[in-house]
Amino acid sequence: MSDIRDPTLAGPGARRIEWAAEHAPVLRRVRERIVDDASLRGRLVGVVLALEPKTAFLACVLADAGADVVLTCNAAMTNDDVAAALDERGVTVFARSDASPDDEQQYYAEVLARHPEVVIDDMAELIRLAHLEHSHALADLRGATEETTSGVSLLRTMASDGALRVPCIAANDARCKHLFDNKYGSGQSVLSALMDTTNLLIAGTAVLIVGYGWVGRGLARVARGLGARVTVAEVDPVAALEAHHDGHEIATVSDACERADWVITATGCRRALPMRAIGRCKPGVVLANAGGPSDEIDVDGLRAGATVIREVRPHVVEYALTDGPAVLLVGDGRCVNLSAGEGHPIEIMDLTFSIQVLAARHLALHGAEMGPGLHPLPTEIDDAVAREKLATLGVEIDELTPDQRAAAADWQRASSA
Amino acid sequence: MSDIRDPTLAGPGARRIEWAAEHAPVLRRVRERIVDDASLRGRLVGVVLALEPKTAFLACVLADAGADVVLTCNAAMTNDDVAAALDERGVTVFARSDASPDDEQQYYAEVLARHPEVVIDDMAELIRLAHLEHSHALADLRGATEETTSGVSLLRTMASDGALRVPCIAANDARCKHLFDNKYGSGQSVLSALMDTTNLLIAGTAVLIVGYGWVGRGLARVARGLGARVTVAEVDPVAALEAHHDGHEIATVSDACERADWVITATGCRRALPMRAIGRCKPGVVLANAGGPSDEIDVDGLRAGATVIREVRPHVVEYALTDGPAVLLVGDGRCVNLSAGEGHPIEIMDLTFSIQVLAARHLALHGAEMGPGLHPLPTEIDDAVAREKLATLGVEIDELTPDQRAAAADWQRASSA
Amino acid sequence: MSDIRDPTLAGPGARRIEWAAEHAPVLRRVRERIVDDASLRGRLVGVVLALEPKTAFLACVLADAGADVVLTCNAAMTNDDVAAALDERGVTVFARSDASPDDEQQYYAEVLARHPEVVIDDMAELIRLAHLEHSHALADLRGATEETTSGVSLLRTMASDGALRVPCIAANDARCKHLFDNKYGSGQSVLSALMDTTNLLIAGTAVLIVGYGWVGRGLARVARGLGARVTVAEVDPVAALEAHHDGHEIATVSDACERADWVITATGCRRALPMRAIGRCKPGVVLANAGGPSDEIDVDGLRAGATVIREVRPHVVEYALTDGPAVLLVGDGRCVNLSAGEGHPIEIMDLTFSIQVLAARHLALHGAEMGPGLHPLPTEIDDAVAREKLATLGVEIDELTPDQRAAAADWQRASSA
Amino acid sequence: MSDIRDPTLAGPGARRIEWAAEHAPVLRRVRERIVDDASLRGRLVGVVLALEPKTAFLACVLADAGADVVLTCNAAMTNDDVAAALDERGVTVFARSDASPDDEQQYYAEVLARHPEVVIDDMAELIRLAHLEHSHALADLRGATEETTSGVSLLRTMASDGALRVPCIAANDARCKHLFDNKYGSGQSVLSALMDTTNLLIAGTAVLIVGYGWVGRGLARVARGLGARVTVAEVDPVAALEAHHDGHEIATVSDACERADWVITATGCRRALPMRAIGRCKPGVVLANAGGPSDEIDVDGLRAGATVIREVRPHVVEYALTDGPAVLLVGDGRCVNLSAGEGHPIEIMDLTFSIQVLAARHLALHGAEMGPGLHPLPTEIDDAVAREKLATLGVEIDELTPDQRAAAADWQRASSA
Repeated sequence: MSDIRDPTLAGPGARRIEWAAEHAPVLRRVRERIVDDASLRGRLVGVVLALEPKTAFLACVLADAGADVVLTCNAAMTNDDVAAALDERGVTVFARSDASPDDEQQYYAEVLARHPEVVIDDMAELIRLAHLEHSHALADLRGATEETTSGVSLLRTMASDGALRVPCIAANDARCKHLFDNKYGSGQSVLSALMDTTNLLIAGTAVLIVGYGWVGRGLARVARGLGARVTVAEVDPVAALEAHHDGHEIATVSDACERADWVITATGCRRALPMRAIGRCKPGVVLANAGGPSDEIDVDGLRAGATVIREVRPHVVEYALTDGPAVLLVGDGRCVNLSAGEGHPIEIMDLTFSIQVLAARHLALHGAEMGPGLHPLPTEIDDAVAREKLATLGVEIDELTPDQRAAAADWQRASSA
Repeated sequence: MSDIRDPTLAGPGARRIEWAAEHAPVLRRVRERIVDDASLRGRLVGVVLALEPKTAFLACVLADAGADVVLTCNAAMTNDDVAAALDERGVTVFARSDASPDDEQQYYAEVLARHPEVVIDDMAELIRLAHLEHSHALADLRGATEETTSGVSLLRTMASDGALRVPCIAANDARCKHLFDNKYGSGQSVLSALMDTTNLLIAGTAVLIVGYGWVGRGLARVARGLGARVTVAEVDPVAALEAHHDGHEIATVSDACERADWVITATGCRRALPMRAIGRCKPGVVLANAGGPSDEIDVDGLRAGATVIREVRPHVVEYALTDGPAVLLVGDGRCVNLSAGEGHPIEIMDLTFSIQVLAARHLALHGAEMGPGLHPLPTEIDDAVAREKLATLGVEIDELTPDQRAAAADWQRASSA
Repeated sequence: MSDIRDPTLAGPGARRIEWAAEHAPVLRRVRERIVDDASLRGRLVGVVLALEPKTAFLACVLADAGADVVLTCNAAMTNDDVAAALDERGVTVFARSDASPDDEQQYYAEVLARHPEVVIDDMAELIRLAHLEHSHALADLRGATEETTSGVSLLRTMASDGALRVPCIAANDARCKHLFDNKYGSGQSVLSALMDTTNLLIAGTAVLIVGYGWVGRGLARVARGLGARVTVAEVDPVAALEAHHDGHEIATVSDACERADWVITATGCRRALPMRAIGRCKPGVVLANAGGPSDEIDVDGLRAGATVIREVRPHVVEYALTDGPAVLLVGDGRCVNLSAGEGHPIEIMDLTFSIQVLAARHLALHGAEMGPGLHPLPTEIDDAVAREKLATLGVEIDELTPDQRAAAADWQRASSA
Repeated sequence: MSDIRDPTLAGPGARRIEWAAEHAPVLRRVRERIVDDASLRGRLVGVVLALEPKTAFLACVLADAGADVVLTCNAAMTNDDVAAALDERGVTVFARSDASPDDEQQYYAEVLARHPEVVIDDMAELIRLAHLEHSHALADLRGATEETTSGVSLLRTMASDGALRVPCIAANDARCKHLFDNKYGSGQSVLSALMDTTNLLIAGTAVLIVGYGWVGRGLARVARGLGARVTVAEVDPVAALEAHHDGHEIATVSDACERADWVITATGCRRALPMRAIGRCKPGVVLANAGGPSDEIDVDGLRAGATVIREVRPHVVEYALTDGPAVLLVGDGRCVNLSAGEGHPIEIMDLTFSIQVLAARHLALHGAEMGPGLHPLPTEIDDAVAREKLATLGVEIDELTPDQRAAAADWQRASSA
């Protein structure tokens, strides 16, 4: 019933999933828990996520716990071998690396047509579609949990417009998610993808980072760790000031482009890197997107403005602009660690997906009482995931003493004297 | 009417204040604004803050704007020359470096006896006293603005106990305050004070940081920048995990003490460094507190347990413990950048005090409508201070385009495709 | 006359070389110079180097300047497409990715049989063979230039044994080589290869670096930049002390293995990571070699001691030891940035190969007068390469003034007063 | 027989020396050794060094070993209390903080008049004077050991001019000296002095470092660790390139001055910061020298070009230039960590002075056979000091196995295969 490209790839796909599973100890513990408590047994769970080994292990965990899993992914982010392995494992998969945009829309419809009770969403794709075109799917939906900053932002807008009709958990805003996934995960995987696809040196180069949220901070940190000089462009004055105190240069996107050897966007905003800025770049500048939306770099503008477009390395396309420099775009403007790499490191997704599974569990158990709207992940889940992770690392931490707890509560006696 | 130690010191004190003023361009701009709008003219403003040149310039700014300023400070944090200069400038000052604890209590009473309309508070000292012992002072009080993490925490407890009877602004929680003051300010000034008082090397040593909030993060960052190996102790599992991913060792306080060359507390908690941990330290370990409360290190325990107590360098006291090592305490367990140094760098306090003055202004203008309780600083004030700071740096940043603003609001068209 | 695997791969190989050429501006300038001065025209140049696009561009530069180039490489380091492109370009290539060890020996013999006048050597392979088995080749040999620390060390031993019969230039010891290639090149490319082959996180992990020479320093720096805690093992007490002051933990290899998540060797020494240390590793530890010799990790011991050996990811083999943990070896114990990656970044090899070409030029012009032995690269060549690089970066630097030069020489007037 | 300012200060001086002694475990071990072997007993040792507690402990160690010590120091670097304590201890001291330049010359003459057998020299002051004006002193002189890069450079010039008539040891070039003292010592103490004297923030500021030798590298590293953006000016193209790859901006001194908030010289060259560069600085820029010569910054030019010169903080003088900005000079252009701070951290000087004492011992024992000229410190001494330091840290390192030593020597069997 799945639509996948080549079922014979299941073997290698399964081995890649196994590697992910071995390095995801927290998610394995979470699996034990949800297998035991049967909280997801028999539930239909719809999943939209980049389809690679780590996501596949997430799907396996849900399936192991007795859930019926339906998963879809766009073509660019689909690993066909992993899709095959999941299909063999009993997960329903709608994902092919050769799917057309129409196919992709059809796949979303297929997921919603099955009336999932819980959705693990990415960029709020399923939730928005359910509200806009497939409202039948809202009836059985206990809730959704959202993976990305951009998706949470969209859901927040929906909620403030009074349009959101189901409970959604802002899983991205969990501390165990955005602190690690967005910062350390993107930091490593984006720079790694750039080094890998270009074989160029980071040390001594000028890296422009557009956006200094958690992703941008992570990028800046790793770029500097590799010896780059970092410039940050921001629209938020406080974030700009923070980047300044972190030792980065601050400039507008357009001004900074003149000096940059690399430009990486991480804003969640459409056209964060517009053509007027690209036009001021040096020839040979490397452009990549590390944010959720695939239009942070004005790829349409590049296509329209180029006289020659040619692939110069796998994942690296040169656009020779009529009225500007020849620039290099990595990973087609999509989130580069996935479109030109293997995504976040496994241990990071171990945290993120543990949050997601426990958020899904929470929705399955409590969605009915939560009411429509955007909800934070309960703090206990965040803390529990962190504690499990520390336990797998063999690290012990302190607890507040009763005396300290009491002191904190006793404002009448507090004293700095 | 002031109580200060030596009025003849006004000359040198004034020169130190002038130096601070020259390096506080944001606060100078804020001064222009409040002089112009007369928002604080004729208001009685009570101030509790460490009394050094930067605070003094804050008091001058208030006075220049026509406020009647009454300021007090405990003995340990008082610079007599600066106090003299302020007195000469017309500020009422109750602060002497030789004040007794009783004097200090009397000084608080003096401030409250004058019925300040606005309070700029530190560790919630004045506000707690006003609620506990001087409730007459609450009548005219439009509100208070609080400088410290610990103070905000106490006010939050008071509010949740239903005890808080005036509007208080959590100035510490302003992004332009805690992001810079707690992190970059403490980071530099605490390590600087330690290097200065000991003449010992940081590179290659083991630094234990107790608490990984904003202050702890700043300390860890600078300590590493100076070549130290950093271990972090935390009670919050997510903060511990963050420190782990930042490349620090994680351990309990007691375990970590065994390897530490330096132990710095930054928790806001009583006895964050208890005697059982100190007892496991290496001989010659250096202990210091970078947090608000002066009992984060168990100084009472040190005094009780030492056979010999002697000053080995200015600000450095050795406690030879009966049942443990000889340890070195810097700055008497009080916040070390003030008790054994000159406090935060000026540019940091320029931000912090700009926030404080504008918070005081906000209370003077709007306190009456705000209602009792703990209030966040209005976002516009935060942004305005950040924008002024960027302007003084000559740095330009981007604005979202109307198209981008519209796109962010348009959840129906958003797409990751 | 070449022996390559598949001539039809020349097209893609040529495109990869073109990419390298575009990012090697210094070598392109060097090419202009040696084309103009005809210093290598008609010279037979033997080259042993890992055969990938950057080396290929080096060979092309030599060929463009009129040299007859014969190149060989071992199987593990050979890119068949690049070999095909070079062959098409007119370079004689003995290199196949499926060559046997016997083939490899035969290839060296083929190069020496052609009586090269200049050799660009790697690990002193050709020079040692010429002295040991093919002394006929020494007659026409004007000299050799050596690429690696290990090779220079061997040549130094040969020289001190009185065995070295031709002039050799220690190109590795040129500042423009080891400062950049060994440090920044290895730093980026080794960590990049490890992230890429494993998809595991570096942040928060414990990395053991065996050897703190230029390569080890580079590895430590990047590992820390990615958020790792670094331990260094060294046999040189001063280097150990330097690592200590750089903020790294110091330990013996065996002790450090107990805590390591990654172990990377960079010593130039046989069995720098012996079985007794591997036996103390944690299960799942990742082992890799960043040094020249392929026996820095005791791979023979791993093979002998393992009950199960299986490839778990491309380039990653698990050895489940009978009397020890299951460990993961990346890139078969060979230099991992080449065996499991694309080698150093291009800009780094631009410097290294500019040094090599100019060293080859120097030997062609002056080898006859140099006399047998190990020679440093003339300082002027080093400086010239650095100046060309700065020029390509558009960076200007100062010159000493005549006054300053005179002052430095005038010891009679110098004064610190 | 000493000339000191105030003998009554001996008590506090002695306590400061005691603190240094407690943190100098390597030098204490060296003391045991030279007390035992009597190598310096009865020898007259002349010492020129900044006179602060660490140097004083060096003098004490020599005295404890039975040497007759005569010490001098210029006024700016003299601590009167420490001088008093040394005098009380039996060391002959010619040093007063109120000495005139003529006095200082007289003091050098006094030292040479006593015919020291061994000299521990700084900036080659005594050696140059002995050659130029007091050649009688050369007769009994077994040799001198030199502390600074600049001094070694002068001695090298003297040697190449054929003027050097005694054996001199380039102690500065010992790995245990310049790797640690110049890099980590200056790095910490210079930045610490600047933070301390100005109370200004480093994070987010632009620091120009003139000279990227060991001192400059150390400064750059710490400045970045504190959050600064670093620009480096160099005359050596390879050093400039190294700074570039370390992630610093490269520029000429004059161009870089336009953007700098801080300018620190570390070149060993006269007028490394000339008036034409100072004239392009921003108002309020802070200037300091971290190199040996006191004329690296053109202080004479500042004095000549200023309309107003005033001390704005202790150790900080403002020069308001007629044709340029008002600039701030810290520590009068002398090496700022000593002129406005307490010098290198103690543990660093523990290494440096251990080297110096063992170099002095070597000269006492072997000077007669060494012959005039500049000699490197014997490697064994360097290694021994490093091993003692590791031992005091409780750190164990590996030794090469006999097998590894043999392999390294066996070039015939070496193989990368």
